[in-house]
Amino acid sequence: MEINHPETLTEVEAVFARYEAALIGNDVAVLDELFFAAPTTIRYGGAENLYGIDEIRAFRLARPGGGLQRKLERTVITTYGRDMAVASTLFRREAAPGKIGRQMQTWMRMPAGWRVVAAHVSVIDDPA
Amino acid sequence: MEINHPETLTEVEAVFARYEAALIGNDVAVLDELFFAAPTTIRYGGAENLYGIDEIRAFRLARPGGGLQRKLERTVITTYGRDMAVASTLFRREAAPGKIGRQMQTWMRMPAGWRVVAAHVSVIDDPA
Repeated sequence: MEINHPETLTEVEAVFARYEAALIGNDVAVLDELFFAAPTTIRYGGAENLYGIDEIRAFRLARPGGGLQRKLERTVITTYGRDMAVASTLFRREAAPGKIGRQMQTWMRMPAGWRVVAAHVSVIDDPA
Repeated sequence: MEINHPETLTEVEAVFARYEAALIGNDVAVLDELFFAAPTTIRYGGAENLYGIDEIRAFRLARPGGGLQRKLERTVITTYGRDMAVASTLFRREAAPGKIGRQMQTWMRMPAGWRVVAAHVSVIDDPA
C-alpha cells in the first residue's frame, strides 16, 4: 500500500481546502455534501457527539453562522493507498486565546468523490 | 467498496479489544505495537498533540500507569473495504463525573497486521 501517492494526495488536499472554505463560510450545502451520507458516519464535535448523518445534518442547520474564522497550524494530510486519507490539523480562533483546536478527519474515496466518514473536533488549553 | 465486510469487522473488533485491554493495563509494549511506526502517525490526546511515532512513544513512556480504568459506551467500528476501519467510542471514568470522553481511531491493515495510523482523544462536559 502506497503512502502519499502524489496524485491521491493532491486530490485530498483540494477537497480538504474546499471543506475548510465551506466551514469558514458556513456553506452548509458543501459541508453536507462532503460528509458521507450514511448512518455509520460519526462526528465528535466541540461539545456534541453526533452519530449518523441525520444528527450531523441537524447540528449543521442549527449552528450559528458567525465567528467561524480560524487559522490552521500543522496541517498534515496522509493518504493510504488510493482511496483513503487522514487529515489532521490544529486551529486557533482569535476569540479563544490560549486555546488550541484539533480537527481530525478520515476521508474515503466514494463513487461520488471524496467524503468524510469520521471526524473529531476538540479544543484544549494550548500545551505549547 | 464493501462497508462492514463481516470477516474484516471481526478482525478489527478483536484488535480494538486488544488495544483497550492494553490501555487499561498500561501495557506500553502492546500500545506501541498497535500504532503504526511512522512519522505520519498522529495522536491528539487529552492534553497533548503528538506528531509522529517518536512523540507518541515518548508520551507513553512518561504516562502514569494508574487510574486508567474506564467504561466504554456507544462503541462503533466500521470497516471500509478490507484494509481500513474507523473505531469510535465514548468513555467514562469514575474519577471524572459529568465528563464524557471521546476516542476515534483510524486503523489500517499493514503487512504486520492492523495498526492505528491516527487517533484523537478528548474529554468534554457530558451533553446528555
